[in-house]
Amino acid sequence: MPLRRPATAALAAGLALSAAVSAHADEGMWMPTQLPDIARAMREAGFRGRADALADVTAPPLSAVVKVGGGTGAFVSGEGLLLTNHHVAYGVIQYNSSAERNIIDGGFIAEGRGDERPSNPDFRVLVTVGFDKVTDEVLAEARGKTGRAYFDAVDAAGKRIVAECEQSGEVRCSVANMYYGTDFYRIRQLELRDVRLVYAPPRAIGNYGDEIDNFMWPRHTGDFTLLRAYVGRDGKPADYSADNVPYAPPAHLQIARGGLHAGDYAMLAGYPGTTFRHRTAAEFDAQVARVLPQRVAVFDALIDAVETAGADAADIRTRYASQLQSLKNNRKRAAGELEGLLRSDAVRLRGEDEAAMLAATTGDHGRPRATTGDDATDIAALQAILGQADAAAARDQLLTLVASQTQLLRSALLLERLRIESAMADDAARETGYQQRDHALIEGVLRQAQRRYAPSAEKAVLSVLVGRYQQLPDAQRLPAFDAAFGRTPESLKTALDTVYARTTLGEEAERLSRFADARAGRPLADDPLLALAAQLVAAQLDAEDARKTREGEQLRLRPAYMRALFAWRAQQGRAVYPDANGTLRVSYGKVEALAPRDAVAFSPVTTVAGIVEKNTGQAPFDAPQPLLDAIAGGDFEGTAEASLGTQPVNFLTNLDTTGGNSGSPVLNARGELVGLNFDSNWESVSASWWFDPRYKRAIHVDMRYMRWLMARVYPAPALLEEMGLPAR
Amino acid sequence: MPLRRPATAALAAGLALSAAVSAHADEGMWMPTQLPDIARAMREAGFRGRADALADVTAPPLSAVVKVGGGTGAFVSGEGLLLTNHHVAYGVIQYNSSAERNIIDGGFIAEGRGDERPSNPDFRVLVTVGFDKVTDEVLAEARGKTGRAYFDAVDAAGKRIVAECEQSGEVRCSVANMYYGTDFYRIRQLELRDVRLVYAPPRAIGNYGDEIDNFMWPRHTGDFTLLRAYVGRDGKPADYSADNVPYAPPAHLQIARGGLHAGDYAMLAGYPGTTFRHRTAAEFDAQVARVLPQRVAVFDALIDAVETAGADAADIRTRYASQLQSLKNNRKRAAGELEGLLRSDAVRLRGEDEAAMLAATTGDHGRPRATTGDDATDIAALQAILGQADAAAARDQLLTLVASQTQLLRSALLLERLRIESAMADDAARETGYQQRDHALIEGVLRQAQRRYAPSAEKAVLSVLVGRYQQLPDAQRLPAFDAAFGRTPESLKTALDTVYARTTLGEEAERLSRFADARAGRPLADDPLLALAAQLVAAQLDAEDARKTREGEQLRLRPAYMRALFAWRAQQGRAVYPDANGTLRVSYGKVEALAPRDAVAFSPVTTVAGIVEKNTGQAPFDAPQPLLDAIAGGDFEGTAEASLGTQPVNFLTNLDTTGGNSGSPVLNARGELVGLNFDSNWESVSASWWFDPRYKRAIHVDMRYMRWLMARVYPAPALLEEMGLPAR
Repeated sequence: MPLRRPATAALAAGLALSAAVSAHADEGMWMPTQLPDIARAMREAGFRGRADALADVTAPPLSAVVKVGGGTGAFVSGEGLLLTNHHVAYGVIQYNSSAERNIIDGGFIAEGRGDERPSNPDFRVLVTVGFDKVTDEVLAEARGKTGRAYFDAVDAAGKRIVAECEQSGEVRCSVANMYYGTDFYRIRQLELRDVRLVYAPPRAIGNYGDEIDNFMWPRHTGDFTLLRAYVGRDGKPADYSADNVPYAPPAHLQIARGGLHAGDYAMLAGYPGTTFRHRTAAEFDAQVARVLPQRVAVFDALIDAVETAGADAADIRTRYASQLQSLKNNRKRAAGELEGLLRSDAVRLRGEDEAAMLAATTGDHGRPRATTGDDATDIAALQAILGQADAAAARDQLLTLVASQTQLLRSALLLERLRIESAMADDAARETGYQQRDHALIEGVLRQAQRRYAPSAEKAVLSVLVGRYQQLPDAQRLPAFDAAFGRTPESLKTALDTVYARTTLGEEAERLSRFADARAGRPLADDPLLALAAQLVAAQLDAEDARKTREGEQLRLRPAYMRALFAWRAQQGRAVYPDANGTLRVSYGKVEALAPRDAVAFSPVTTVAGIVEKNTGQAPFDAPQPLLDAIAGGDFEGTAEASLGTQPVNFLTNLDTTGGNSGSPVLNARGELVGLNFDSNWESVSASWWFDPRYKRAIHVDMRYMRWLMARVYPAPALLEEMGLPAR
Repeated sequence: MPLRRPATAALAAGLALSAAVSAHADEGMWMPTQLPDIARAMREAGFRGRADALADVTAPPLSAVVKVGGGTGAFVSGEGLLLTNHHVAYGVIQYNSSAERNIIDGGFIAEGRGDERPSNPDFRVLVTVGFDKVTDEVLAEARGKTGRAYFDAVDAAGKRIVAECEQSGEVRCSVANMYYGTDFYRIRQLELRDVRLVYAPPRAIGNYGDEIDNFMWPRHTGDFTLLRAYVGRDGKPADYSADNVPYAPPAHLQIARGGLHAGDYAMLAGYPGTTFRHRTAAEFDAQVARVLPQRVAVFDALIDAVETAGADAADIRTRYASQLQSLKNNRKRAAGELEGLLRSDAVRLRGEDEAAMLAATTGDHGRPRATTGDDATDIAALQAILGQADAAAARDQLLTLVASQTQLLRSALLLERLRIESAMADDAARETGYQQRDHALIEGVLRQAQRRYAPSAEKAVLSVLVGRYQQLPDAQRLPAFDAAFGRTPESLKTALDTVYARTTLGEEAERLSRFADARAGRPLADDPLLALAAQLVAAQLDAEDARKTREGEQLRLRPAYMRALFAWRAQQGRAVYPDANGTLRVSYGKVEALAPRDAVAFSPVTTVAGIVEKNTGQAPFDAPQPLLDAIAGGDFEGTAEASLGTQPVNFLTNLDTTGGNSGSPVLNARGELVGLNFDSNWESVSASWWFDPRYKRAIHVDMRYMRWLMARVYPAPALLEEMGLPAR
């Protein structure tokens, strides 16, 4: 237990801290194709397999790792049995739960294949079957262009590649942008549409601790669920049918008999969503100095507005409960990210790293010039473009919230934009979000507004957002907004009162009748809120155009920055992984304890003792009696951790993860499945920007806990046998 | 960091726990006179001094340890300089703070002796100058009596001894009951009445973390203040006068230059208030099964009633803010005590220990009989008496709350009882609390009711308390209460509505005019609430009589139980300390980490890094800028902990403490002052009943932190020199 631990920036001067924080030995969300390049480092970390066997995402073992719902999962038998998180499969569990049989609370064990339950129709499992570099194809038309033209050329090439790829109807395709426009990859995925629920523990195991323990180590949660993928009798993806047969995956993982100890090698594969690690020093500064503080401030103001609107109105409190919870979560996340970046002194460290990179690669300080003069020019141009984006950031944040935090105005904006996009004959050319495949989602928004809207609350939300907008510098304001709302609080109030008193869009039927017109590209029947939306959408399109122009320039210029980074890291003997973008990645590291604060140290392994300690009998700490009885019974033979003399539950590693890694399989040095990723600690919320090895941890279900539950508490011997495990 | 830790009762079966929890190596609040008996154990624990030098409370070093306000303190110079907690001296700081010079927030450093500030007039320092066994004198008249007569004989003997002892006018005397009526000691104390403020850190150092960190390890608080005791020019205690001179204490402690490390010997002296460690197994069971759950339930109901009464009335919320906070604190304490006793499985362990004691000492199981037949009879009789007390406990709890949680009824009850007691000519014979010395306190209650009373809230409180009273079994109810309030919720409501609509005691003048009559023993002018109080006081006097009869029996019978315990512990090779009773005690142990929950481990030392980590800029985490600057400056020469390379702040020991130990000096193996006790961890709230070595810790200010603050942050070189320390 290290008594002395590195501390915050303010302490750095006084405490003579170790400067090792930038070493980042375990940082990295590697593309599988990169693993042969870092094989030596993996071996030194303890890996006992062959790194080149991991390089092909379409071959075992990585072909066992799939995208499941919003997260990750892995096949664990040759007959399509699929392991993921309880929270990733929660929609499936909910879909099969009813008042008569509440399987959310009670859990579910299929009584044989015939009893496996279909998932909600939009639930998907994606098996990656192709991963090819298409950089030249994507950039061919873009080269020589700038700004919006560069953006459109890349966008069009991507859409064309996807359309060609999907022509056979056998696979779903996408184009992934690696290293910010440096490389592009075409990804081909089987879309499994018949996925069934096989085994889910009760909520009070699968989600033990819920929001209270979320992001909090130590955890004591059995956050796992087993599904099974089915295909048609021809072996091809198919909609649900009783005739379908289990899918034979290209590979499946073997669950280990033993577990890991502090310091042991661990690795993880999954589909992490988005990170910002390779953003520029100026972007780090903007995030910490402006974006996050503004986000916290505007969420605070929105929370206050919604709470005030509901203070004396139970009906409004009910309608806005979900939105309020979401606002609070977003506020908490932003504050946590800000706190973490400050704690890690990320702005200073990223700034020093970038300055050293530029000095080392552009020929300053007498070092050899690793970057061409053109690249140096591009990097300077990139900095200028990022300055423009920074200036527009506060406005863009407010515009986004105007569209996302309102119900009726959001509906009107959607209808107006849908009308405009639908007027284009070519569905594929329409803006993402307004194509035919998106109509169901839009209709859902238009319908749900009914249960989530109150005029006074929506006006309060808009008063906050437009009120802050009115304070922006002249250069950032949009004429259409000024025309609609004026420049003073009084004019804003008058405009809102007038529009909301007269609009009829509060009626669901009124919204749906416009929807029918909008999706057909026809003019919409008059309404004051639609008239306002027409003004605002025109302004949004202008802002969007400016944004796409800036983004085009970034797409064109960032590769120069990345080349400098590659050269700089090469000088340091380090490889560079691309920032996360929802594609399959591998990270490796080890089981590691956490000492997040002065005098506080957390062991990397929790045990069933902690379940009993936390148990209050009240949700979310209401462990089921069979679990409590089994813990008291103490029969952990075959699944206990010998060094602890009891049953392990969760464990902690320093693996590099972010949102999307939920359900990622954690493998030991021999590639066996030892854990299931499901959470991270609060201190690592800022890791999407900055990996601080002192604080970044990932939280996993120990597979021995799953095995013990399935053997002794809620037995499923056939499933254990199917996974090649002792039935008890 | 121990991964495996003993767990709760529910786990005991399953986890094959070590049975060592009853060993209690470090348990004990020893009378100094006992220390020679346990000298060997102290030496084995690391003590390097002579235990017999500690046996005399009137000789160095223990004569340096004094009672200060509600806590403890120690002289640290030959000129009356006295070290205690910031929170113990808080009233003194508050008394000297003003809008013009807010020394609570800014701290205070006297600019020389002339600038030392007088304390509030009722602040006292008590120096123990005599400690003599008077058991025979106290029990002479009681022997052969039973019940109320036994109680009265002991009570009268005690009052007589005190009166004789105080006759000289030089000392304040009291009689302390050790081992529940087994022994009695006469304590003589100098009462120093001129105590001045010398040095106090700012609130944000002295109370850093406040209620949020209270009871929470790790802490980062400089909870210390320096006072100075003055006496008249004749060397005798005197009221404040500019002519007074510093008091020359019989001894003072020397502050150590170094600090302690995990495992190092530590000891502590102070005036712990009340513990219940030697209560019977049946009393433990009653506490856990009934007293604490009832307390939690009734506080919950009162909190709900007061909050409901104030829900739509800001005025009521203001008037009841302080009472509500107190109710919540009491509720939290009761719940924490219950949680701790359950976690430690105290009822089972105490029960097993008592059964083994009775078997070993009363001749059962073929062992030699260590307890006389008379004692065995007495123990059986004691158990019967305790059963009666247990049956009356719920009622007595409610009666106490009726008197303490109301404002107007409390005033009426006080007035009526005062009238009755004052009718007795002999002031000393009047019930404690109603003697002339208590009149000022009663008047304070009568006056403060004005700011803290609202009829609807008081009726709500009484509805809860009397409503619960109405549910008691017939045998526990009092005829007068039934007559006053009836037996149904409706009759209760009618009675309360009627009385509160008509009483004029809501007027301060009405209460004070009755006070003038009551203190003179004259009849009180008519009022419906006083008429009610007259009924209830008569009933209370009956209940009090029954209680004193039971207590007399307990005083008579518990010594037999204690003799059995002495014999049983002797067989185990262990000495027995008396339960805490506000007299000077010594405990010894060591610096020890805490692993309170699964996977959670706390280091026993905190550092200034934690101050910066916790700092939010908002109270209670608003460290002063000079402190933050000094931390960043990093000059800790002479006060740093070498093994950590930085400045320590607080540390943790397993020393045995309870309320009243605030400000206790913590000494190292050579008797030097290394720490100042100021808090304990949440898990040890239940230690007043059961010392569980896994969880019981005490929290201390590291004297090196005080020295660093006084040398580098808010310098006071003259005071450091006076304490024999380097001035910087």
